[in-house]
Amino acid sequence: MVVHNSPMMNAIGTLGSHCALQVLRGAKDEGFKTILVCERRREGLYRRFRFIDRLLLVEDYRFEHSFSESVQNELHDNNCILVPHGTYISSMSIEEIESIRIPFFGNRWILRWEADRALKERLMLEARLNVPKSISIDELNGSSDGSKEARLVIAKLHGAAGGKGYFLAWDRESFMTQYNKLLSKGMVKSIDDLYIQEYVLGVPVYLQYFYSPLNREVELLGIDRRYESNVDAIGRIPALQQESSGVHEVSYNVIGNSPLVLRESLLDEVYRMGERFVSAAERLVKRGMIGPFCIEGVYDQDGRFIAFEFSARIVAGTNLYVNGSPYSYLLYDEPMSMGRRIAREVRIAIDSNELDKVVT
Amino acid sequence: MVVHNSPMMNAIGTLGSHCALQVLRGAKDEGFKTILVCERRREGLYRRFRFIDRLLLVEDYRFEHSFSESVQNELHDNNCILVPHGTYISSMSIEEIESIRIPFFGNRWILRWEADRALKERLMLEARLNVPKSISIDELNGSSDGSKEARLVIAKLHGAAGGKGYFLAWDRESFMTQYNKLLSKGMVKSIDDLYIQEYVLGVPVYLQYFYSPLNREVELLGIDRRYESNVDAIGRIPALQQESSGVHEVSYNVIGNSPLVLRESLLDEVYRMGERFVSAAERLVKRGMIGPFCIEGVYDQDGRFIAFEFSARIVAGTNLYVNGSPYSYLLYDEPMSMGRRIAREVRIAIDSNELDKVVT
Amino acid sequence: MVVHNSPMMNAIGTLGSHCALQVLRGAKDEGFKTILVCERRREGLYRRFRFIDRLLLVEDYRFEHSFSESVQNELHDNNCILVPHGTYISSMSIEEIESIRIPFFGNRWILRWEADRALKERLMLEARLNVPKSISIDELNGSSDGSKEARLVIAKLHGAAGGKGYFLAWDRESFMTQYNKLLSKGMVKSIDDLYIQEYVLGVPVYLQYFYSPLNREVELLGIDRRYESNVDAIGRIPALQQESSGVHEVSYNVIGNSPLVLRESLLDEVYRMGERFVSAAERLVKRGMIGPFCIEGVYDQDGRFIAFEFSARIVAGTNLYVNGSPYSYLLYDEPMSMGRRIAREVRIAIDSNELDKVVT
Repeated sequence: MVVHNSPMMNAIGTLGSHCALQVLRGAKDEGFKTILVCERRREGLYRRFRFIDRLLLVEDYRFEHSFSESVQNELHDNNCILVPHGTYISSMSIEEIESIRIPFFGNRWILRWEADRALKERLMLEARLNVPKSISIDELNGSSDGSKEARLVIAKLHGAAGGKGYFLAWDRESFMTQYNKLLSKGMVKSIDDLYIQEYVLGVPVYLQYFYSPLNREVELLGIDRRYESNVDAIGRIPALQQESSGVHEVSYNVIGNSPLVLRESLLDEVYRMGERFVSAAERLVKRGMIGPFCIEGVYDQDGRFIAFEFSARIVAGTNLYVNGSPYSYLLYDEPMSMGRRIAREVRIAIDSNELDKVVT
Repeated sequence: MVVHNSPMMNAIGTLGSHCALQVLRGAKDEGFKTILVCERRREGLYRRFRFIDRLLLVEDYRFEHSFSESVQNELHDNNCILVPHGTYISSMSIEEIESIRIPFFGNRWILRWEADRALKERLMLEARLNVPKSISIDELNGSSDGSKEARLVIAKLHGAAGGKGYFLAWDRESFMTQYNKLLSKGMVKSIDDLYIQEYVLGVPVYLQYFYSPLNREVELLGIDRRYESNVDAIGRIPALQQESSGVHEVSYNVIGNSPLVLRESLLDEVYRMGERFVSAAERLVKRGMIGPFCIEGVYDQDGRFIAFEFSARIVAGTNLYVNGSPYSYLLYDEPMSMGRRIAREVRIAIDSNELDKVVT
Repeated sequence: MVVHNSPMMNAIGTLGSHCALQVLRGAKDEGFKTILVCERRREGLYRRFRFIDRLLLVEDYRFEHSFSESVQNELHDNNCILVPHGTYISSMSIEEIESIRIPFFGNRWILRWEADRALKERLMLEARLNVPKSISIDELNGSSDGSKEARLVIAKLHGAAGGKGYFLAWDRESFMTQYNKLLSKGMVKSIDDLYIQEYVLGVPVYLQYFYSPLNREVELLGIDRRYESNVDAIGRIPALQQESSGVHEVSYNVIGNSPLVLRESLLDEVYRMGERFVSAAERLVKRGMIGPFCIEGVYDQDGRFIAFEFSARIVAGTNLYVNGSPYSYLLYDEPMSMGRRIAREVRIAIDSNELDKVVT
């Protein structure tokens, strides 16, 4: 049974990773007690921060440890609201996440739409986002026969985290070479484990939104780009040296994030995309979109945004803006991180007796 | 008739694009009423921001709509000072801009020097900025005859916005191939529509200055680099894949900006460049330089700055610093965006009865 | 004789370059008088900043000028504590730095370990940092005989500043070609002037730490990456154009810095590296590590950090955070630059009569 809508809720908690520091710092700024479910080996890190009131130490972030009966009881007894983030999704199954008895800020039911590729695409299309074209193997050119124009494609592993095993190919031969490599490493079992998309040439941009079900408004609170290894490293090697030494493979392991602002004339469409996403979620997903989300893609040379992914919860790029972003300062007169915005929403909801609108 | 120097001026206005949010937020922080001339289709965006007191809706930003008689009358009746930015220049002719009856913050007469390539070069040379060498077609190497060392050049279209149609070439053959492509697309009519420069290899840097005619000082308020599509995307594709799939063309469409600080030992010359620019403008241009400007170029591997362009008004890279920049915090104890600095200058000028020194 | 531990110390000073603005602004914020030893030609720059109370003008930053008897007397009479930075190391010998009679914030004896490559490596290994493998010439592949897999290496000049003369090679032939070029330019005399390392493919990251000997805690106060010319420029040229026009050489001249945050799951190891570094310094170096330091390296595609260098004093990347960083805001409720953190430590040490713990 999910407990919520209680005026007693006075703690905010999360798992110790991803954006926990920002979330709990924001919660403390808004007057909440803060609780961290923390892997024992990371205790040293999180003990440094005075805004964390309580650490619940666990072995690791698998469900049976991080949300054991005793952890859940402890969180419940502390009247704690949980803030979900990327580590929940990478450490537990969606079923496990959904089964947690503690109220979540945001919509726990939408996380399934983020994790499942088919549902994800459906929601993106419903939101009328531009998405990359899917390519079938038959559409790849024959090996350098020159009959069709070469076209770059990216092959992705279903469910792969952080771009592990992704590869670029430009024709059938280059595709098969790399596919066979993955086969021999046991990373794929058949061609069906891959999906192939056109490679959209453009600069990556991550749009950090917050949707308030209380005032029914979307806010753009920040923009970032990821800093990924090794794909953001290869450009520092001249073409000659790349080719001579065999630097041909890229990976997309997220190491960090760096700040961006967008051309102001793009902002109108950015807001429209956010609003279309919220209204698509309202139509397709039980409880719809609540709180932070992110639309992720590239701007091509014509300034068109092509969306690759979304996250239906807070993203780590918001960690750039612990003390506010250029966009949050247009909306708020005080520093407003995404973590603080979440806590502010909880506080407003409690004060107006509408907590059931923002937790699930 | 340009109306100014009135103690009644108590509103600041601009067109809804480019850096309008920052400018009006800064104006509000300094106690001004704020007015936005806003395309109807962007109303949804700008209505979100509480610091915008008044929207004047127009069809689009062509002169006949954005500065129609009725709009100008409205701005006049509100005792409004206009802040010009890049959208003025891309949406109207210089003659139209100059004809607006509302006082401009800054020097409206210098915008012509920004828009006209010959005048622009003259002002840059007068300021003793290093500029890239112009190349004539005859100086391009014969096609891979090996007789001269290859040299990269960039061909630019006169008056092209945002790098549209720019291309890189390394000899006569590669130049002609790409020139012929532009010809067949109708983007150029003859070789005279292009100018060719040496391609200076270096990291792009945009220097954001403010010059106060009241205290006669230059301030460096921020530094950024642009984030351009697709040129900032191609480095994420290995050389092999670029060549195999035919990624050979770059474009320079500005998508956003990211923050930078410079090596402190470069700052002295940065300030000198700014001061030389101001004093060159004083000699060549009626009313000289007033308020924000930007010098744009690259630092080469020897730490030498080569200037490509200037903007004689606020640039969009200042949008990074809505809440102040590392440089503004060395000069001010409060957050000082370029937009706010403009409003502050207007306020000081009004208080000291010197408004005619900062508006035209 | 080094004078310290006096309750009279009420000024903070440094050389006018590198991070002097940040350091003196921070000192002023903490209530100190500020003194700048300043090259005459840079006077124009530093006079602009009101937080600099006093300029001592010198011809240049060679020891005989910057720390002449009269300059040292002046600093002494003003009860000044000096903050060392990169310009000290590049302008003077270690012996000269060590001989300065004015108290240094931090440990002057550890600067020798930063400047000497053998000592540096010893300290890094003692701290159990991952370092790149050294490569001997014999380990380089024969010229394109295909018998071994090609491997990229970087050859560095001993004692070279800013990557001058560094080159990339992938086999014996490419190595010799470039080595012979340096020989003919007189930049090296023999192969022993070079050391060769595996080129570690990964994204550069600079970790900015502060260690307080008063509370014995390490603080991570910021993270950045460098912006280097021309290595951060070549990725904007397509592979075809690079190869056709002969863009094959990279240089690593630091032009500036840009901000970053790291994936939160990497922070625990970041703190551990900092603590291992401090404790290694405690074992190997007289007085150990005091105050600001930086560990510099890359994250590879597996998220492993490989350290190239350290700086045992404040680094210029901290200039990004004059008004605080995302990390300083997790630790402090007010803007805390590295410069201000230094001054804060001096103030606490004075107040608790422990100045001898933080100066040498």
